[in-house]
Amino acid sequence: MPSTSSPERPSDEATLAVILAAGEGSRLIPHQAGPPKPALPLLGLSLAERTVLVCLKAGIQRFLFVVGHREEEVRAHIAEMAARRGCVVDFVTAPDWQLGNGASALAAAAKVTDGSFLLLMVDHMVDPSVIQAVRQTRLGPGEICLAVDRDKEQVFDLDDVTKVTLRNGRVAQLGKSLERWDAADMGVFRCTAALFEGLRAAAAAGRHSLTDGVNQLAAGGGVIAVDMTGQAWLDIDTSQAYREATRRLRYSLAKGREDGYISTYLNRPISTRLSVWLATTPITPNQITLISFLVSLIGAAFLALGNFVAMVLGALLVQLASIVDGCDGEVARLKHLASARGAWLDTILDRYSDMAVTLAVTSACAGQQAGLSGWIWAGGFVAGTGFLLTSYATKEFTLRHGHPYPDHFLVRLKKRDLRLFVICTGALCGHAFAALLAMGALSHACVFGILAMGWRISGKSAYE
Amino acid sequence: MPSTSSPERPSDEATLAVILAAGEGSRLIPHQAGPPKPALPLLGLSLAERTVLVCLKAGIQRFLFVVGHREEEVRAHIAEMAARRGCVVDFVTAPDWQLGNGASALAAAAKVTDGSFLLLMVDHMVDPSVIQAVRQTRLGPGEICLAVDRDKEQVFDLDDVTKVTLRNGRVAQLGKSLERWDAADMGVFRCTAALFEGLRAAAAAGRHSLTDGVNQLAAGGGVIAVDMTGQAWLDIDTSQAYREATRRLRYSLAKGREDGYISTYLNRPISTRLSVWLATTPITPNQITLISFLVSLIGAAFLALGNFVAMVLGALLVQLASIVDGCDGEVARLKHLASARGAWLDTILDRYSDMAVTLAVTSACAGQQAGLSGWIWAGGFVAGTGFLLTSYATKEFTLRHGHPYPDHFLVRLKKRDLRLFVICTGALCGHAFAALLAMGALSHACVFGILAMGWRISGKSAYE
Repeated sequence: MPSTSSPERPSDEATLAVILAAGEGSRLIPHQAGPPKPALPLLGLSLAERTVLVCLKAGIQRFLFVVGHREEEVRAHIAEMAARRGCVVDFVTAPDWQLGNGASALAAAAKVTDGSFLLLMVDHMVDPSVIQAVRQTRLGPGEICLAVDRDKEQVFDLDDVTKVTLRNGRVAQLGKSLERWDAADMGVFRCTAALFEGLRAAAAAGRHSLTDGVNQLAAGGGVIAVDMTGQAWLDIDTSQAYREATRRLRYSLAKGREDGYISTYLNRPISTRLSVWLATTPITPNQITLISFLVSLIGAAFLALGNFVAMVLGALLVQLASIVDGCDGEVARLKHLASARGAWLDTILDRYSDMAVTLAVTSACAGQQAGLSGWIWAGGFVAGTGFLLTSYATKEFTLRHGHPYPDHFLVRLKKRDLRLFVICTGALCGHAFAALLAMGALSHACVFGILAMGWRISGKSAYE
Repeated sequence: MPSTSSPERPSDEATLAVILAAGEGSRLIPHQAGPPKPALPLLGLSLAERTVLVCLKAGIQRFLFVVGHREEEVRAHIAEMAARRGCVVDFVTAPDWQLGNGASALAAAAKVTDGSFLLLMVDHMVDPSVIQAVRQTRLGPGEICLAVDRDKEQVFDLDDVTKVTLRNGRVAQLGKSLERWDAADMGVFRCTAALFEGLRAAAAAGRHSLTDGVNQLAAGGGVIAVDMTGQAWLDIDTSQAYREATRRLRYSLAKGREDGYISTYLNRPISTRLSVWLATTPITPNQITLISFLVSLIGAAFLALGNFVAMVLGALLVQLASIVDGCDGEVARLKHLASARGAWLDTILDRYSDMAVTLAVTSACAGQQAGLSGWIWAGGFVAGTGFLLTSYATKEFTLRHGHPYPDHFLVRLKKRDLRLFVICTGALCGHAFAALLAMGALSHACVFGILAMGWRISGKSAYE
């Protein structure tokens, strides 16, 4: 708890975060129906929980929430979340929260004994790297620091943001309506007790916003600007900003260069939308992995029946499973639930799902052309082993060479997303087995490519 | 070359090895037919080449060979080897080599300008760690050091070995016929110019062995003993010792816990004997890899024919290929040719060889029981993918957890050596497909075991 920590060590890293959660959030929740703002869910997690999780990632260990508006509900929500996440949380009530967020921040003074601490807003979404950088910034006595973003183009809702002017790496002035300004205030501070002095001085002059208090220190050159331009952040204080946060979270789910072509242009656009909904349900990522596996097995069973209607149904189910297969990781990332065991289960089940589809398509084709069944089965066998071998060769390559096989169009062509899509499309056209063979041949070509690359880059010895 | 190096730096690591190769070796080569002793081949490499390769592994960069008996032949052999291996070699002739190995060592004085250097015998086989330890031992001015082995039980040919008595970590006395002794002289020295003074003093008294010269220094406490008890070494100066060296090299080829049951008790005992012969031929390890692969493909083709005689022949060929598959690595290790690309090629071709055998056995069985062919093909498919999946899951496990799947009887049961042996034995009994199915089931059980272990040891997150 805050009260047990050692006093005055402004140059160490801060381990306590003071989080302002006392305000009403009237622009975001105009009629105060539903939960108070800190408990407002955003893709499955409340704003308070998201703030805490990002802080934990950045190395913060203890939290002091300043509460005010709908205090009891906010305390209950945060206490439940803290117990569930296993983190250390304390509360302080800001009786004058309605005066402004400076009055809320000043309430923390009674409970903070750390030499320095972070100050965050419960409704700001920021990248963990911003918190990390701020908490490691060295402060002199009487100084505070503040993360700023110099890229005006990227700032969401320019009208509403707090701007700053800079002078020699320090903040000269803050304000929402500065005429000339250099950067935006990202809402992430590292403070010493100096902050409270600034807030008291401003309050004495009848000004109760955090900006007013910080301006007191800025006038004396006591506010260091930490330039975090390029890092993501968003002040979620309007419904437009809330929608933007949803959009950004969804966009962050694609894996970029790791994703194959079908993933990028078909599966992700669907799966991320699905995940945004799944994140609001109690379904866990591992449950999604199992559901996707079961759907692919059911799809394979339909494919094995061999008649056209069953093939179409099977193909659609297998492609659906391929899409849902992206959701487990997406939901895990959205809800900060990503786990090594989840990824491990997913990887092994994907291989079995591929086997089931290959077996089903081959069996259906062999049943239809009894005279060629030996050749068809042999072809299916070669294709199926090709799929496994590309995965195997990729892993073996990484283990032997210490880095993954370089991104190459062959590697994208052998990826699971494209393979299943081509087989499913083939099934819809009545040519599932031909599609299977084509993807099998491609896979073996890819294994050969990986083999050749490994051969080229391996050391050779004197006699060879 | 030795003459270009900087003088006097006795406390650095030595980078020059003086190798005594002037003697006749009359007990090993009694009638002087064939090559001179330094050029005597031992499993494909001459004694001189083995000594140089071990030194290179231990960080030695330059070599000075002292030659005498059959000087021209020895020089020619070593010069050819040095050119082929790309290492820096110089020669000095010991005109009085017949007086004793001390006289040979003294001849090096004219060419050695290094502050310190290693002194080795061309006919001693030692572990690189011994050379490494000796070359890093710090010497004071006037000191030399010597590797010793305190384990009398493990010394080969006790009668012939040079013994030492120790006092406070120093050698007090050396000799072949000491009554009481503490350790054996391993024949690996690090010397300063003090050695030559000792040799000259001994020579002045009419004593010309290396032991005599070292005893001069030992009397003054100038010979440090480097205890290398437990490290392998052997003085190859009799035909018994030569046979022991062959035996030890062959035994060193097994991979211990990495080898499966059939490897340990059937394949290695045969393959190491075969490798001992292959090492004396110009066949390279990669050629052996390809030969083993081709033999397994031919074996698979016979298995696919399905009649009993062809099945027996196929089974024998596949088992032969499995045995020969060990030889590539063994010959590579015997001839210091081990290469990353060789291991990589072997790994991928093994998977294709497994596929060919699975396909052949399944095809043969499906051809014999046409009514069940669909089920048989499906069974073969599941078995074949099981084989690949165990390899895949093992690699994926290692990548995700940073260490290999622990040694477990299931892991040994799914290894390739046992799998091929069981299938081949099944083929000899007329039940190849049943054996294939059994090994496939075992493989899938092993995948499940690896999946469960990975699940258990992976971190879980709060919600799961």
